[in-house]
Amino acid sequence: MEKMFNPESIAILGLSAKEGNIPRLILDNLLRWGYKGRIFGVHPDGSEFQVSGISMYQNVEELPIVPDLAVLLIPARYVPDMVEACGRFGIRRLALLSGGFNELGEEGERLASTALAHAKNYGIRFIGPNCLALANTANGMCLPFVPIHKPPVGGFSMISQSGGLGIFQWNHLRNENVGLAKFASIGNKLDISEIEVLEYLGKDPATRVIGMYLESVADGRALVEAARNIDKPILIYKASVTQAGQQAAMSHTAALASDETVMDSAFKDAGIIRLHNFDDFINVIKAFEFPPLRGNRLMVMSPIGGGCVMMADNCEKNGFVMADPGKAFYEDMQKRGNAGIIQFTNPLDLGDVYDMKHYAPIFHGVMHSDGVDGAVYLNQWPDMPKTDERDVFTKLFHTDVSREVIGAVRSSGKPLGAVLWGSSPTLDKIKRHLGYPLFNTPEGMIYGLAMQRDFYAKRLALEAEGSLPTAVCSDEVNKMLEKYEGDIGEDFLEVLNSHGIAVPENRMALSEDEAAAAAEAMGYPVVLKLVSPDALHKSDVGGVKVGLPDGAAVARAFGEIRDSLKKHLPHARFEGVRVVAMADEGHDMFVGASQDSSFGPVVFFGYGGVFVEVFKDVDNLICPTTAEKVEERLSLLKSHALLQGARGGLKVNTLDFCQLVAKVSTLVAAHPEISELDLNPVRIFKDGSVMALDVRARIER
Amino acid sequence: MEKMFNPESIAILGLSAKEGNIPRLILDNLLRWGYKGRIFGVHPDGSEFQVSGISMYQNVEELPIVPDLAVLLIPARYVPDMVEACGRFGIRRLALLSGGFNELGEEGERLASTALAHAKNYGIRFIGPNCLALANTANGMCLPFVPIHKPPVGGFSMISQSGGLGIFQWNHLRNENVGLAKFASIGNKLDISEIEVLEYLGKDPATRVIGMYLESVADGRALVEAARNIDKPILIYKASVTQAGQQAAMSHTAALASDETVMDSAFKDAGIIRLHNFDDFINVIKAFEFPPLRGNRLMVMSPIGGGCVMMADNCEKNGFVMADPGKAFYEDMQKRGNAGIIQFTNPLDLGDVYDMKHYAPIFHGVMHSDGVDGAVYLNQWPDMPKTDERDVFTKLFHTDVSREVIGAVRSSGKPLGAVLWGSSPTLDKIKRHLGYPLFNTPEGMIYGLAMQRDFYAKRLALEAEGSLPTAVCSDEVNKMLEKYEGDIGEDFLEVLNSHGIAVPENRMALSEDEAAAAAEAMGYPVVLKLVSPDALHKSDVGGVKVGLPDGAAVARAFGEIRDSLKKHLPHARFEGVRVVAMADEGHDMFVGASQDSSFGPVVFFGYGGVFVEVFKDVDNLICPTTAEKVEERLSLLKSHALLQGARGGLKVNTLDFCQLVAKVSTLVAAHPEISELDLNPVRIFKDGSVMALDVRARIER
Repeated sequence: MEKMFNPESIAILGLSAKEGNIPRLILDNLLRWGYKGRIFGVHPDGSEFQVSGISMYQNVEELPIVPDLAVLLIPARYVPDMVEACGRFGIRRLALLSGGFNELGEEGERLASTALAHAKNYGIRFIGPNCLALANTANGMCLPFVPIHKPPVGGFSMISQSGGLGIFQWNHLRNENVGLAKFASIGNKLDISEIEVLEYLGKDPATRVIGMYLESVADGRALVEAARNIDKPILIYKASVTQAGQQAAMSHTAALASDETVMDSAFKDAGIIRLHNFDDFINVIKAFEFPPLRGNRLMVMSPIGGGCVMMADNCEKNGFVMADPGKAFYEDMQKRGNAGIIQFTNPLDLGDVYDMKHYAPIFHGVMHSDGVDGAVYLNQWPDMPKTDERDVFTKLFHTDVSREVIGAVRSSGKPLGAVLWGSSPTLDKIKRHLGYPLFNTPEGMIYGLAMQRDFYAKRLALEAEGSLPTAVCSDEVNKMLEKYEGDIGEDFLEVLNSHGIAVPENRMALSEDEAAAAAEAMGYPVVLKLVSPDALHKSDVGGVKVGLPDGAAVARAFGEIRDSLKKHLPHARFEGVRVVAMADEGHDMFVGASQDSSFGPVVFFGYGGVFVEVFKDVDNLICPTTAEKVEERLSLLKSHALLQGARGGLKVNTLDFCQLVAKVSTLVAAHPEISELDLNPVRIFKDGSVMALDVRARIER
Repeated sequence: MEKMFNPESIAILGLSAKEGNIPRLILDNLLRWGYKGRIFGVHPDGSEFQVSGISMYQNVEELPIVPDLAVLLIPARYVPDMVEACGRFGIRRLALLSGGFNELGEEGERLASTALAHAKNYGIRFIGPNCLALANTANGMCLPFVPIHKPPVGGFSMISQSGGLGIFQWNHLRNENVGLAKFASIGNKLDISEIEVLEYLGKDPATRVIGMYLESVADGRALVEAARNIDKPILIYKASVTQAGQQAAMSHTAALASDETVMDSAFKDAGIIRLHNFDDFINVIKAFEFPPLRGNRLMVMSPIGGGCVMMADNCEKNGFVMADPGKAFYEDMQKRGNAGIIQFTNPLDLGDVYDMKHYAPIFHGVMHSDGVDGAVYLNQWPDMPKTDERDVFTKLFHTDVSREVIGAVRSSGKPLGAVLWGSSPTLDKIKRHLGYPLFNTPEGMIYGLAMQRDFYAKRLALEAEGSLPTAVCSDEVNKMLEKYEGDIGEDFLEVLNSHGIAVPENRMALSEDEAAAAAEAMGYPVVLKLVSPDALHKSDVGGVKVGLPDGAAVARAFGEIRDSLKKHLPHARFEGVRVVAMADEGHDMFVGASQDSSFGPVVFFGYGGVFVEVFKDVDNLICPTTAEKVEERLSLLKSHALLQGARGGLKVNTLDFCQLVAKVSTLVAAHPEISELDLNPVRIFKDGSVMALDVRARIER
């Protein structure tokens, strides 16, 4: 990858000066951006000696040296042969921009697989096809074929699944004075994937913040694992294409497992920042230009009263609290007001501070207070008629306080975000010559700072946490699983039990006497449940009898279950009855698991019944996971209040429950053949101990 | 108000050419904006003959005519006398910009009430104090004292509680090419309130869209009533100041009744559009420049594939569905593609349509399809190096399709919103000369169109609905209420019953025998409940016995209740026992009501228990209201699924329940002395009939 972004020589295949030649636009970009390596042109018709001063060759074999990179933007049907020719000549890196491959029918797929085979044969790595390929502001390499100016050089790198959005992004970056390091449009990613580019950017010293625009996440698990090993902020805008109706599923879990909720949870767990609009790329990048926000206490300042209120609202929405800079600070402020008509507090209304020389000590005082973790400031630079320069409003609005802002930041090592409102031509002019970023809206600024704060907090947590647990099951569990296939009911409790999950005491009974003896041994009351491979839905055939108080009742129930089965399903096999101990009362929880096509095994958990099904008050984690993580997420569910004893209910310790969820997570992580699993309910008893009362599983090999 | 915004003559009090004179900035604005009425200056020191060519007078009495409006920006201590002088001279309208009144301590309050008394005495109406007062682009009147250019003339009028935000708004409007009609900064609104200005703007022919920035809503009920009578879109940005902890309350309702939820509900009911960020003022105004969106089916178009996906996401978020322009349209599209590498559908990816002459027939075809209610289009105008003009990208990105867009709008009478991405200097230039609004982001455009759609739908609904019901109670109820005061328990059921709400059959019993006879008469099982004015919390003193199956049990329970009260509270009065019929099973709902300080009587409703208390799955309406409105809101609650039979529960008809809520709404609307009321639970039975099983009320006179 390093040479891919930093080739010392490039050959452009298909280059020509003739009208409509698109590869020539790539050459134009390379020359315009100041790329300093050697460039060669290749075109089979051999009629041109040079193009824009670049020597032309009829075949790659004629090139004077083996270039580090060849760029192909030629019709798809010529691509496989050209890949071969490149390989033969010794070229090992390609940028394959052409479309018409696996995104377009059978013939395209054939071309794609032939080209891929040739590449593998020669050890060639390539990006594409069907993409804008790569750009690197550090060395002036620009392979996209749209005429474009070089954006400012900076620490933001972008991986995009849409070329057009990439170009917008570049214009937007220049507009906002945010610098670009590297750009990758990965197209059909036949060889090099976004994961590989991400891993490279994670180590790239020029890249400080990584952005991704994705329309699909083929291997979500690999993505979050790569992200966990990267020490830089990763921002992802994932367009969520509307899903076709989900296939009929056996379990609740499958119905819950929409890609979106799994992705949200997995991204959050890996410290990935998921964006929901495109402007936030810029807002969050800007926030990362500031020192880390190490706490939650913000000072809010503006000479616009309404701006103070608006920022305070946004602080609350984003989980900030109003900082207290202390009594001494406010006493000092009293000296700085003009008419004395404003009571100073946080938000700090600066509307009465007319003399701009007060700004430096105010910012300094705020930022150096131990009670303040960071601050936000809003002002406007309205287009005003030229008046007597001594009028207070011109002074108030047209005084440059950028030194005062950035001085306080550098001195304190804390962030002070600033929004400047005004007409865009005015703001463009001001921003162009500024050494630090201005935000455009209070919403964007405070959201950006919140994401920055959360990133650093999560980064610390990830460092403390180390790597994920490994998923291991005992030989006994592994062995036991072998005998299952398809849909299984409560027989599967024995697997859970062997994996260390408590299940109700139960015994098989083949006769009235055996049933009564089993019940006698375990104590009354008991439940009797039909065992028949032909009747998974036991209740429907009268196969469940609860609350049986004594031996006579048990014996009678045994007979009734056997007779009822015969009546409902005359040919079903009767294999006896399971005698199950009645569990004590408690909170009934839901635990489920499924195999996500992108993120692999995922475990779901929440308060059972209507809370999961109707209120969707449920969370998930990719497997394996730990009890600590489950506990953290569980505590954020609304229904957690019920476990805390809301409405006079039972207050319970949830540690055992979280450990049970972690155990389920290792089971499904170790056994991908468990495609769906519902533990419903899992009961939490008064003392916090837990038991899986029923289970349904689907095994697919 | 008409003359307030359209005075034919203005006197500026305190005007001077001396350094630092702020009234002079007002004069500058009037001259700059082209105000064409006569202007006079007044200053008590009498040393100046003219200021900027305007004649000066030492006292108002010396003015050659009585001006339509006098502007006061003089120290607060001089204001009361000056108001009197103006009144004496016959001036009947004032703009009182000065601060230092009731917002600032006792002395300020005294000045305010004196000034107000003088004004009332002379029949003077005034705006302010402590404000920027008024502006009107139509006649060039600009009273704010900050030097400012005139924004473009247009149909948007703004009422603002923050002057600084108003100024930002003006700059923002000019930047976005959105025109202003009138502006009002109302300050302390000692005389003229935002309601009065709103009513005026509602009738003002120059105003098509009304915006309000509010930090407090003093009389929410008057605001929504005024809004209901205005036929124009009303946009409100209400800053929500963080609330101090709510006072300890007797009822659930009081705890639920945060200003925010009541306000949200009342605004929604009146068709007011509540904004959550400032940019949306512009987005929504722009959307109202287009013909009404009469349905929900949008066509999404862009040459940027990622832009299509992004817009489709936003359409889904805002409740739109993808329109189908029909087979003929797609067949026609096939002729217009270049490489044939894109499958046309909705979203319509135009990335393969390189010849811009296709845009007019495409837009025309989309907008005239019966399957399409409106459309959105996104493109970019990137800053590109000047190249061979025949290169496809320059053509694709730098071709003006504004005629094609607006032609399709005018021809079809449907909205086609367009976003153009690009650097701000480029966009500024393009927008400045365009006769229709461009949006800046897909999020903003689609949100704006959704608000436009909802407004027209709500407007139709309001027209159909007519005025709100009147709140009338029978004489019997009115009489009955007179005897109550303070906190009341289930005794209050008789009031509900008289108001037409079913309650459980119940009889008072003073002895064992009476209790048994009562139970016998109403049928078993029954509940016995203690009656004692000294024990409102009956359960705590053993005062409730449920499920009593026969006469013996009833007699025994009577004795137990009496003895238990004696044991727990030896001095409590025992006034007998209430024998209550046991109700059938059903869904237990919550209905509550309270008196909101701003919106008056409000009724709350939702699925009882944990759903209201923990999940906050509850809605509210201001009272009185109708069963239809309650039904509409009830159907949007998550827990509505439970009433629909989710999880095998009882599916019930909710009509009776909604009528019960409406009855509660008339009760509390007619009787503001009912400060809090909980009907908890209200049970919905299998057949849809309803019964209030228990009640608590607080009466405060």
